[in-house]
Amino acid sequence: MAISSPQSSITTLIHSATMAATKLILALLLFLVVCSSNVASSKNSRRPKPCRRLVLYFHDIIYNGKNAKNATSAIVGSPAWGNKTNLAIPNRFGDVVIFDDPITLDSDLRSTPIGRAQGLYLYDKKEILTAWFGFSFVFNSTQLKGTINFAGADDIMKTTRDLSVVGGTGDFFMTRGIATLMTDAFEDDRYFRLRVDVQLYECF
Amino acid sequence: MAISSPQSSITTLIHSATMAATKLILALLLFLVVCSSNVASSKNSRRPKPCRRLVLYFHDIIYNGKNAKNATSAIVGSPAWGNKTNLAIPNRFGDVVIFDDPITLDSDLRSTPIGRAQGLYLYDKKEILTAWFGFSFVFNSTQLKGTINFAGADDIMKTTRDLSVVGGTGDFFMTRGIATLMTDAFEDDRYFRLRVDVQLYECF
Amino acid sequence: MAISSPQSSITTLIHSATMAATKLILALLLFLVVCSSNVASSKNSRRPKPCRRLVLYFHDIIYNGKNAKNATSAIVGSPAWGNKTNLAIPNRFGDVVIFDDPITLDSDLRSTPIGRAQGLYLYDKKEILTAWFGFSFVFNSTQLKGTINFAGADDIMKTTRDLSVVGGTGDFFMTRGIATLMTDAFEDDRYFRLRVDVQLYECF
Repeated sequence: MAISSPQSSITTLIHSATMAATKLILALLLFLVVCSSNVASSKNSRRPKPCRRLVLYFHDIIYNGKNAKNATSAIVGSPAWGNKTNLAIPNRFGDVVIFDDPITLDSDLRSTPIGRAQGLYLYDKKEILTAWFGFSFVFNSTQLKGTINFAGADDIMKTTRDLSVVGGTGDFFMTRGIATLMTDAFEDDRYFRLRVDVQLYECF
Repeated sequence: MAISSPQSSITTLIHSATMAATKLILALLLFLVVCSSNVASSKNSRRPKPCRRLVLYFHDIIYNGKNAKNATSAIVGSPAWGNKTNLAIPNRFGDVVIFDDPITLDSDLRSTPIGRAQGLYLYDKKEILTAWFGFSFVFNSTQLKGTINFAGADDIMKTTRDLSVVGGTGDFFMTRGIATLMTDAFEDDRYFRLRVDVQLYECF
Repeated sequence: MAISSPQSSITTLIHSATMAATKLILALLLFLVVCSSNVASSKNSRRPKPCRRLVLYFHDIIYNGKNAKNATSAIVGSPAWGNKTNLAIPNRFGDVVIFDDPITLDSDLRSTPIGRAQGLYLYDKKEILTAWFGFSFVFNSTQLKGTINFAGADDIMKTTRDLSVVGGTGDFFMTRGIATLMTDAFEDDRYFRLRVDVQLYECF
């Protein structure tokens, strides 16, 4: 009894010391999991899994000298051999166009716009149809406020092509990503509709 | 006595083992705090607290056919119905302007410029006054060297509007952020002064 | 004996508890090293040591009214005092040029192009030669696919000047960095060759 008494108290001591150490270690592990998941999420946000995605359409009706009321864009620069009411030949090379195009959630031009695509595009190749875009999506509705800014080459003859999302403001503060364009429709030289799949990889 | 002796030596053993474990755990905790603060600071640098901020003004005097000496900008593209010495009607839609505007620390046009705002803007809406900007702040003084590059939509009728800082060089190497524009003054169609609040959220 | 028996079993208990704690602590330390190296690498990727570098050349032959076959660029906007087959005087101020220039690995214009530089540049200063660039490198070969998007001021009279890499797609998904330009050659007003040292600091 005299012997068992200190032994059991020692065992209790060891037990409580081990328990305390175990609790501390568990707390540390929990902390580490949080710590590592922070690191992981900050890494994941930079890898091919968008933190936000929007699929939108915009509609461009170019001014041809007769459609001032409906036109959403106009030729404002043209090469020596061009003019401002007809797209240049060949391949529109040298035409600069300013646009203010309605953005819709579906492909219908008559749907209520949720914003405007504003900026410029220019046709930059003699041999085939290619363009370069610098523009913004401007949102000012109850659902969406702010802008997304784009820049990049548009290899029009390809089914899909990627531009860069170079920044954003408001709801899209400091965002970056990729925009995949698809020509969803076109009519003569006067109308085109682009499907834009905006994939954002940096969200704040 | 014979019993108390092993007990006290065991207690010492437990004590020293617990002490050693406690020291290790404290060292770990210290390490973790450093580790987590690194994670935290790398996260904070991406949140709405600028790492650098500049409030500057730039002054634009557009060429009107008579002010070649004072003008800092010129219409270089215009729609079919426009020309290069008068802003287009309505709402300047379709005008493309190239500028090389002095940047000053205060709102006085005659203050010594600390750099130049260079690039283009274009008016992109028929119904109201809106613009799109692609330009750089170019600094080359003893205080500031390097460039800040901007892109974005300028909804002119709003009191303030945000553009993206899409990159930088020199003192502004790889920077990103937001620039809040305010029309600080305008006179007829010939002069405007913009206040630019540059908020940088990525500094290197 | 009766006393030594519990003491040794207690010592064993303490020993095994200490061993287990030590193993856990070592495992934690290993984990922490991995965790901290992740943090460190994510920080390093944002500092002046490129994760990728390309040195390329591009060649610009401007249209002058007689070289339609060879020209790779054309004036599409000009100031009131300019025209589209001659660069404006003085300092080309107000000229907007669209280009589709071949990119080569060496400085020889006749080398097989590995891509195209497409977009616009504009001359933006009356007093000296300066330009502003918005363009893309477009690659579509077996070695390289994708685009790199650039924006920034080109202070042409300086030996080297830096533009921003504002984004990329394909092989250059989401990249950012700096492009150092050097005028490698120029002939009259009709040809120039730029050496571009692309330094990417964000690679995915």
